[in-house]
Amino acid sequence: MTDINFIFNPEQIAVIGASRSKEKIGFAILDNIITSGFKGAIYPVNPREEEISGLKCYCSVKDIDSPVDLAIITVPVSRVTQVAEECGQFGVRGLVVITAGFKEVGREGLKLERKLISICERYKMRMVGPNCVGVMDTHTPINASFARGFPNEGNISFISQSGAMLVSILDWSFQMGIGFSRFISLGNKADLNEIDFIESCATDPLTSVILCYVEDITDGKRFVEVCSEAARKKPIIILKSGTSTAGAQAASSHTGALAGSDRAYEAAFRQSGVLRAESMNELFDLARAFSSQPLPDQDRVAIVTNAGGPAIVATDAVEKFGLKMARFTKDTIDKLRENLPAEANIYNPVDIIGDARENRYRFALETVLKDQNVDSALVLLCPAAVTEPENTAHTIVDLNTKYSTKPIMAVYMGGKTLTKGKEYLTNHDIPTFTFPEPSVHALEGMFRYNEYLSAPETKIVEDIPDLDQGAVRSILENVFADRRVVLLGHEASAVMTAYGIPNSKIYLAKNEDEAVDISDQLGYPVALKISSPRIAHKTDVGGVEIGLHSEKEVRKAYQRIMEKVTHFLPDAPIYGIEVQDMVDEGVEVIVGMSRDIQFGPLLVFGLGGIYVNLIEDVSFRLASSLVNCDDVRKMISETKAYSLLKGYRGKKPADLDALTDTMLRTARLVTDFEEITEMDINPVRVHPKGSTALDIKITIERKD
Amino acid sequence: MTDINFIFNPEQIAVIGASRSKEKIGFAILDNIITSGFKGAIYPVNPREEEISGLKCYCSVKDIDSPVDLAIITVPVSRVTQVAEECGQFGVRGLVVITAGFKEVGREGLKLERKLISICERYKMRMVGPNCVGVMDTHTPINASFARGFPNEGNISFISQSGAMLVSILDWSFQMGIGFSRFISLGNKADLNEIDFIESCATDPLTSVILCYVEDITDGKRFVEVCSEAARKKPIIILKSGTSTAGAQAASSHTGALAGSDRAYEAAFRQSGVLRAESMNELFDLARAFSSQPLPDQDRVAIVTNAGGPAIVATDAVEKFGLKMARFTKDTIDKLRENLPAEANIYNPVDIIGDARENRYRFALETVLKDQNVDSALVLLCPAAVTEPENTAHTIVDLNTKYSTKPIMAVYMGGKTLTKGKEYLTNHDIPTFTFPEPSVHALEGMFRYNEYLSAPETKIVEDIPDLDQGAVRSILENVFADRRVVLLGHEASAVMTAYGIPNSKIYLAKNEDEAVDISDQLGYPVALKISSPRIAHKTDVGGVEIGLHSEKEVRKAYQRIMEKVTHFLPDAPIYGIEVQDMVDEGVEVIVGMSRDIQFGPLLVFGLGGIYVNLIEDVSFRLASSLVNCDDVRKMISETKAYSLLKGYRGKKPADLDALTDTMLRTARLVTDFEEITEMDINPVRVHPKGSTALDIKITIERKD
Repeated sequence: MTDINFIFNPEQIAVIGASRSKEKIGFAILDNIITSGFKGAIYPVNPREEEISGLKCYCSVKDIDSPVDLAIITVPVSRVTQVAEECGQFGVRGLVVITAGFKEVGREGLKLERKLISICERYKMRMVGPNCVGVMDTHTPINASFARGFPNEGNISFISQSGAMLVSILDWSFQMGIGFSRFISLGNKADLNEIDFIESCATDPLTSVILCYVEDITDGKRFVEVCSEAARKKPIIILKSGTSTAGAQAASSHTGALAGSDRAYEAAFRQSGVLRAESMNELFDLARAFSSQPLPDQDRVAIVTNAGGPAIVATDAVEKFGLKMARFTKDTIDKLRENLPAEANIYNPVDIIGDARENRYRFALETVLKDQNVDSALVLLCPAAVTEPENTAHTIVDLNTKYSTKPIMAVYMGGKTLTKGKEYLTNHDIPTFTFPEPSVHALEGMFRYNEYLSAPETKIVEDIPDLDQGAVRSILENVFADRRVVLLGHEASAVMTAYGIPNSKIYLAKNEDEAVDISDQLGYPVALKISSPRIAHKTDVGGVEIGLHSEKEVRKAYQRIMEKVTHFLPDAPIYGIEVQDMVDEGVEVIVGMSRDIQFGPLLVFGLGGIYVNLIEDVSFRLASSLVNCDDVRKMISETKAYSLLKGYRGKKPADLDALTDTMLRTARLVTDFEEITEMDINPVRVHPKGSTALDIKITIERKD
Repeated sequence: MTDINFIFNPEQIAVIGASRSKEKIGFAILDNIITSGFKGAIYPVNPREEEISGLKCYCSVKDIDSPVDLAIITVPVSRVTQVAEECGQFGVRGLVVITAGFKEVGREGLKLERKLISICERYKMRMVGPNCVGVMDTHTPINASFARGFPNEGNISFISQSGAMLVSILDWSFQMGIGFSRFISLGNKADLNEIDFIESCATDPLTSVILCYVEDITDGKRFVEVCSEAARKKPIIILKSGTSTAGAQAASSHTGALAGSDRAYEAAFRQSGVLRAESMNELFDLARAFSSQPLPDQDRVAIVTNAGGPAIVATDAVEKFGLKMARFTKDTIDKLRENLPAEANIYNPVDIIGDARENRYRFALETVLKDQNVDSALVLLCPAAVTEPENTAHTIVDLNTKYSTKPIMAVYMGGKTLTKGKEYLTNHDIPTFTFPEPSVHALEGMFRYNEYLSAPETKIVEDIPDLDQGAVRSILENVFADRRVVLLGHEASAVMTAYGIPNSKIYLAKNEDEAVDISDQLGYPVALKISSPRIAHKTDVGGVEIGLHSEKEVRKAYQRIMEKVTHFLPDAPIYGIEVQDMVDEGVEVIVGMSRDIQFGPLLVFGLGGIYVNLIEDVSFRLASSLVNCDDVRKMISETKAYSLLKGYRGKKPADLDALTDTMLRTARLVTDFEEITEMDINPVRVHPKGSTALDIKITIERKD
């Protein structure tokens, strides 16, 4: 990791393309830097000016009589590379290229952008942009952007691939009273991208939450690496757009970004500990919660309210988002019963009823916060005649300080009457909402993140014995030599065997006698299946016969298959007939893989059989993340198939160890062999003891 | 339907318990009535006062020298029934009982409430409450409540089971610029309930949207009846809380309401055309959209934006909520291409880029609104340097008027910079949002409602021949006589047969010879199953043998079963052994019923087999609503099982007509016989031709 913190805290900054005319971006940037209170040296560069905003203006960056950490470039697009070259020669450490007209405008722009990248590489300069709004740091302070306004100080870093969104959020944040530590506009991400900035913000002591809007991830593998580590230090919350087919089209016409599949993103985010926001509202609800409140230990929520209806709505939300309503200790209940009016509800949600003033809120909230069965509290307040929204706000803040390990959210349901109370809460770090549901959703995010943190940091990579890479390699080579991309049954079986995956053995018989010999060796009953690269659906052409119990049956079946196949498909090349042993009963699951261009092989597990695509009871993981049994078990447990495997409705439990081993080995296989682009074992039949891979389909592609 | 509109537009109103002391509710109500500008006669009633707020005060309602339409009662709970009695004697038409201390406080309160109800019935008075905040109508105008403030005039009626929520929303609505026609606090719903008010608001010409917060529905059947009709006149949007287990607990401790199951609510809402909001935000987003914009014809959305990122987010939302991005005509595209800057995106979303002023918004928005492939438009605006939020707002309003059949939503992403523009939009009936997702969600609600309206209004009730009610009645009587609640296999089979539902025939054999006789008649192969009211899981005790091909096999199987069962369960009463014919292959589905206490029999359909509960691929309907094939087909088509039935992966399609007939007949059976409390046919096996009900479980309960 290269240190790029100098971008947020440069000692000297040059504005190349600085301007005197107020409507120019070159003016706005210089003005922003000055008025943000930046304490380092500022050098405007513009050959046509002598002085701008009271600062000496330079003809070129080369004329500056001091080193320069950071240069903001806002000259016309035709001059950017030349200016960058000069910066490089002069020893500038970093560039923020505001100018647009690069990759986003098409082929010519892309060429120019590549040139810019090579200049940066040559001089070891780091670059933000091009085509970006700039960067800000409220603690330095510095506003090296052309956005109007400078955020309030805070501890949220916001990284955005959309400049307009950044500007919008800035404007909106004033109204909401949200503060930020850094604002980063990614632009085209020609050099520095979201991963670099996540890494950098993770080390920034003044940032406690990293917020990200992205349309694509630049480097899937590095993303997972960096985020897994960064997410242990502070929460990373990402809104990834372009999830829809239509959205992805919009995304590529917008930034030329190549979107990875959403399933892969989902898997990558989860295993990196990244929280994925589903909407912009959620993104900022989570930001507010994380930036101001401690993480809840567990999922038990207490609700204190002065109104019944909203409390029911909140309780619904607690269940909907997978949290639990806290069950109070007897002590708490006794205390509430003694001290609250008779009409109050002393169980959770605690309804202190409509005539509650500040003191009743204080008593009830403190009582539940003290309860060891409570991990977080939600305070609901509706404006009744005697309600004291402002005093109650003070009380909430006090108790939040006093019981500083338990997060509190406030729901102040109303408008003008509550404005002052809301403001006080917001200014004192209590996330405040108008309606209950989003507050509970934010709590859920905090709980999930805490779960991630609770998992052991370093994973033990299981040592898998008996992997014969050489055997697999030579099978694949043979298939390539045969100019095929799909392995035949006996080849796929051999690959499984080479990686120690128990499978229904398949041998290729070239004639009837061979079929009988193999059957004798395997032991009866056996199945016969036609082997031809042209025949995908063997059953449809009469190419499958199962449950053959004797030599005689095998011979007859062999003849029938050949007859039918040559009848239906006289031109199909026939390699022979596969002989396969029959397999015991068991729970049928699917283990498969599809290779994502961004994140590599994505393993899928779920309920098997012909209804897989119909039922979609599946879980996904990046194969590279499945390094031990625990990982695999977790993956299995997320599906409904798990209920079957555990022994559904009185059936014997299936052998989870055997399945886990098969999945670990499959993960290793697809990680070891990049040539394997797609793979389906459907079903893996999991017996009470052992498991068997049955129908195995492997598709490969030559890597050059 | 009794006309209760006089509650919102009384000629005379008495306030019984009116008070001079400002902190009393009796003061607040009188004051609210006066200051709301109510034009009818106002009579304060309080024996201890001569005059309040300049109005002559009466000792009792009986002393008033004019008839009284409506009396607001706010006397202490101990005096309420007496006062109500007086109102009745005096000929008051309606009461609004503000006073609390009834059902919600326990048994004594419930008694009092019953007494109050009987008084109202005796005098044919209608009553709102008790334990309510009151009622308001902004057009009359009248504020007969103790809430602080009076809503802005508008066309939304809000009916709330929670008084506090009503007060909160009132307060909040000022800030949001939302107007209302009526505010109704339901209180305990002792007489008038949400259904009465929905019915009444549906006929109110000044209400265009009916909004409802409820914790329970008072009368399921009437709800469906009334709403089905009312929803054809105007949209009804309901937030039903208490959906969670925990929430239902909170609901019952709150109002003593008995919550129906959520599935039943789901089914009832849908078939009544009621839109169900999942959150308070959604409730009011929908309210804003419906109250101000026309319904979109179809689901094709156009987006006009000055920023790429937010447009991608919006596009994602369009797909997520099941709408479509409009595909423009060639004309539109050509026109956009000719007139927009080269960097603009001329396909949907139309990105008119960051330097767009009002005129470019006007051009682009008008162009897409003119397009026949566009049903609705979303305008996104981010604050860039030259953006004209206010002028653009004017333009949006203009074009909304000009193209008045297509709804427009505005997303103004930002804060202070956009406030004036937002205000202008809100004041001119353009639903305005800060982030894109909720606006798209609201559009979806409008589209769904329009779908409901497009369905034919009156349904043809299919005539079902060959229903032998007498046979079913006598089977049920026999079971009751045997003191059982679960039908045995052969009984259930006979019920099916009586209602013309093809099923795998089951006959009870009392001994081995009878089993053979029956088998001979049915034809081989057959299955044998133990028949005992004590044995639920027959397979587990060795009580099932299938695929028996001959007399010999039947005899052997009979002996084995008897041996095992008497071994495992020596004390179980054995009725004999069921002989069942074996059934052809087919797609296995479940057809079942559970009886909801609120809404009656709820039919379930889905993928059958032992995994039903695991996979939960099911759709629900109130059985009473399934009156013709179209209803049933729609229900089938909502499940994944439908894909199987249509012929999955090259299989023969199953006989949908046969299945439909079975479902229609089942719906009729459970509607005809209230004694049937639960029923499961799992599976119904649907063949390429015909269908067979296989395992049939029927549970009954004597109705007294």
